[in-house]
Amino acid sequence: MIRTETAIRVRYVETDAMGFVHHANYLSWFELARIEMLDAINLSYKELETAGYYLPVLGVAITYRKPAYFDDRLIVVCYVRDLPRLQIKIEYEIFREETLLATGSTDHAFINKEGRPIRPPKNFVDGFKTAMTG
Amino acid sequence: MIRTETAIRVRYVETDAMGFVHHANYLSWFELARIEMLDAINLSYKELETAGYYLPVLGVAITYRKPAYFDDRLIVVCYVRDLPRLQIKIEYEIFREETLLATGSTDHAFINKEGRPIRPPKNFVDGFKTAMTG
Amino acid sequence: MIRTETAIRVRYVETDAMGFVHHANYLSWFELARIEMLDAINLSYKELETAGYYLPVLGVAITYRKPAYFDDRLIVVCYVRDLPRLQIKIEYEIFREETLLATGSTDHAFINKEGRPIRPPKNFVDGFKTAMTG
Amino acid sequence: MIRTETAIRVRYVETDAMGFVHHANYLSWFELARIEMLDAINLSYKELETAGYYLPVLGVAITYRKPAYFDDRLIVVCYVRDLPRLQIKIEYEIFREETLLATGSTDHAFINKEGRPIRPPKNFVDGFKTAMTG
Repeated sequence: MIRTETAIRVRYVETDAMGFVHHANYLSWFELARIEMLDAINLSYKELETAGYYLPVLGVAITYRKPAYFDDRLIVVCYVRDLPRLQIKIEYEIFREETLLATGSTDHAFINKEGRPIRPPKNFVDGFKTAMTG
Repeated sequence: MIRTETAIRVRYVETDAMGFVHHANYLSWFELARIEMLDAINLSYKELETAGYYLPVLGVAITYRKPAYFDDRLIVVCYVRDLPRLQIKIEYEIFREETLLATGSTDHAFINKEGRPIRPPKNFVDGFKTAMTG
Repeated sequence: MIRTETAIRVRYVETDAMGFVHHANYLSWFELARIEMLDAINLSYKELETAGYYLPVLGVAITYRKPAYFDDRLIVVCYVRDLPRLQIKIEYEIFREETLLATGSTDHAFINKEGRPIRPPKNFVDGFKTAMTG
Repeated sequence: MIRTETAIRVRYVETDAMGFVHHANYLSWFELARIEMLDAINLSYKELETAGYYLPVLGVAITYRKPAYFDDRLIVVCYVRDLPRLQIKIEYEIFREETLLATGSTDHAFINKEGRPIRPPKNFVDGFKTAMTG
């Protein structure tokens, strides 16, 4: 299993009139966290796209337990339990110190520039293998 | 059951470098659709907040089947199957003409200004009852 | 001169913790208004991009006079005073009923897919000429 | 004069279908940079709001010179030349390494919870005085 942590500081633009963070922003934080998860295992999402591979989102789920507020310092924990095949699943937990604010997951496909499903490149799978088996 | 339709025209700001709509925007469209669903049954989310009730999101789920593009004219169909009690569940389908692009759901609690769970106001429940029983 | 009007209903996601619309959203409304201005003179920004022309923003300016709130029904008035050449300038006013909330302008260049400055296509200039001279 | 630097890594959600960062996001980066500028002189925007002071935006101007892209590491330089009185002006430059991508400014008023103009609190003005005079 891969487990990485991403630090977030809540931006003012991410709040809404309820005084909380608007719930849609959690998807942008998940996105940021999975890009930093790839960094952590020496893969670059930018290079993946440059090589002609895209990782669109097939599905998302989020459970919100407690609100987040402007200027909160949060940690987004990112988990990958299975090697990427045609798809990859990533799970997330968002913490403010010891308090779990939200959990979620995203599912992604690998597609090429024409939008066709495609296997992930070898260096990508190898990166996950190395990270998972140490 | 309540079923309403909301028309959306995709904004340029909602797209991303993949050339599609960024997946987080579907949550804003769902939000817009449920506000128009309330309008359709003569309830106003703005008045609900003015009266001291808030409807924060407890959970969301979205399945993305096909991408949406800049300038697409979409229909967000909104369904409510059960009367609101301490919580309310709303389901959504997004269509471009006959093509189903995405499905999803959101769960909400009613809370007061202090963030405590609270029953929805009587006129709110009555509005749903009237709409559901015709 | 071209003058068009675009109706906006403020979305919840556009508000921030101050209880107002976050100031960055006015740029998205200006964008929406200029796309509807093009519609009104029988030009399509989407077709312009399909034909290989892009209209990136070179500069913006906004003066905020009064706040906008969730659920406000606003009118964005869009003005073009001069024919597009290598650049085009568009001016905006945002009203809630008779109250002027904001004014602004955006400047745009025409570029091709390689990012090089380019003259706008003939049908585009002709569309503006027809609209301006009636 | 105060001069501070804020590091930004461009998020995927900030891009648009042109392949660049959408121009509205620069306003969120300016916002982030001025909050970090306040941090740097031992002032907290969050505490300012808790004390009942708000800093809404009266006006913005941005000149875009070169596009920013997904995953770019940018520096937002933030300048304050004059002590805050009833208003405060902040200027910005955005760099990717040595390349200047954009310049801009924002003007802000101090208001209280009722939306009335108000002088900034003494500790706030003192913080700027100390920072400016060394």
